[in-house]
Amino acid sequence: MQTSELLHQVPLFNGLDEQIIDHFCAHTNQRQIKKGTMICAPDDVAHNFYIVQSGWVKLFRDTQDGQEAVLDILSTFGMFGENSLFGKSDYGWYAEAVEDTTLFSIPVSILKEAIKNHQGVAVNMITAMSEHRRKLDGEIERFMLQNAPQRVGCFLLKLVPQSAWDGETPCPPINLPYNKALVATRLGMTPETFSRALKALKKNTDITVKQSTIHIDDVDSLTSYSCQACSSFFPCDGDDEERD
Amino acid sequence: MQTSELLHQVPLFNGLDEQIIDHFCAHTNQRQIKKGTMICAPDDVAHNFYIVQSGWVKLFRDTQDGQEAVLDILSTFGMFGENSLFGKSDYGWYAEAVEDTTLFSIPVSILKEAIKNHQGVAVNMITAMSEHRRKLDGEIERFMLQNAPQRVGCFLLKLVPQSAWDGETPCPPINLPYNKALVATRLGMTPETFSRALKALKKNTDITVKQSTIHIDDVDSLTSYSCQACSSFFPCDGDDEERD
Repeated sequence: MQTSELLHQVPLFNGLDEQIIDHFCAHTNQRQIKKGTMICAPDDVAHNFYIVQSGWVKLFRDTQDGQEAVLDILSTFGMFGENSLFGKSDYGWYAEAVEDTTLFSIPVSILKEAIKNHQGVAVNMITAMSEHRRKLDGEIERFMLQNAPQRVGCFLLKLVPQSAWDGETPCPPINLPYNKALVATRLGMTPETFSRALKALKKNTDITVKQSTIHIDDVDSLTSYSCQACSSFFPCDGDDEERD
Repeated sequence: MQTSELLHQVPLFNGLDEQIIDHFCAHTNQRQIKKGTMICAPDDVAHNFYIVQSGWVKLFRDTQDGQEAVLDILSTFGMFGENSLFGKSDYGWYAEAVEDTTLFSIPVSILKEAIKNHQGVAVNMITAMSEHRRKLDGEIERFMLQNAPQRVGCFLLKLVPQSAWDGETPCPPINLPYNKALVATRLGMTPETFSRALKALKKNTDITVKQSTIHIDDVDSLTSYSCQACSSFFPCDGDDEERD
């Protein structure tokens, strides 16, 4: 994908003048990152703002007792580094490619200057940060009030394609986007808790599980089980980067 | 407190020209809100951006099964409404005064216009939103990995004054900033889980509890118990609005 083609698809660059898009293109670099490569560490000064073109990037921290807190897993058009533009300049977490990944990087200095000089860039950045805040508020709400099986159900519902949840077609088999252990960590569970939660979910809804493939016979049953402990009705907006 | 005096103390207005501060002052209203008053509902269009001068404001949502998800509790200089400036225009949660509260309100239209026309306002807003994002990342991490007593310990540590944690003076008795039931909800616990967590904390650290007053004889013991399941070392920054 050409840089300009990518930037035109990223919401952060929506509706900007071609001149400023060209300016960003001139300073954007594409990087191929091998699976398992660490892109940055929490204390690194954020020199670059990143956009994922393809692959998966895990944002995480290590606790003092050696646990991993996976704060986000980014796929296509996911961004990181915007948190370090003004105020604190460190990234604040590790970023690691969990699959072979292609990233675009823009120097933070270029983005800062553009925010100051082009109101469209500032407005788009505030819009993107507001959307992310709403997503995090939703995550905190679910951690507060959903039990483990409901959190797994919520995760699965985000993978259901629109044609299935609006009743047009049956739900196709759902493949987990990354391995079970990573899904468990992302949901704040041990692999054992995740397995138990999946079993409870099978008992309480119409899903069946074959290795990493989940069959959802009745989306409504999963919805009514998982969403009862949430303020949003399915399909909830925001927080849908994993959806087809 | 005069409007201008307040605005000068709020980080969002740091370092701005007097002319733009005067412009905000001219459009700012002060409101006295009685304890228990609902300020906005999730679907309300956000016409106003609010700054708390004194009192406490609870931001929350209701789940479908009738639980309350308390997403934030704001005190002096806490802000809400910035999430609705661009993109979605609804508030996204209920805001309720949990004590008699004084609020300053600025029309969202005035703030939007200022962000577009004054780079200092845009930069300050992005800085404030980045800080809030870091705070929410920390909260998610703690929900993922801390057990209930550790979460209660973390909450108490935020109430320890600096003179006690840097070893200058013994820690004075700590009073909960609002009632126990609200503290429990804010930590995503039932009142029963909160009581059990407090008991476990008494057993594992040197705290003693008398009604709503907590005595912390050894800040280090509380720190080492609570912070082991966190990536930050005490005193962690961000997330410290309750601290003296």
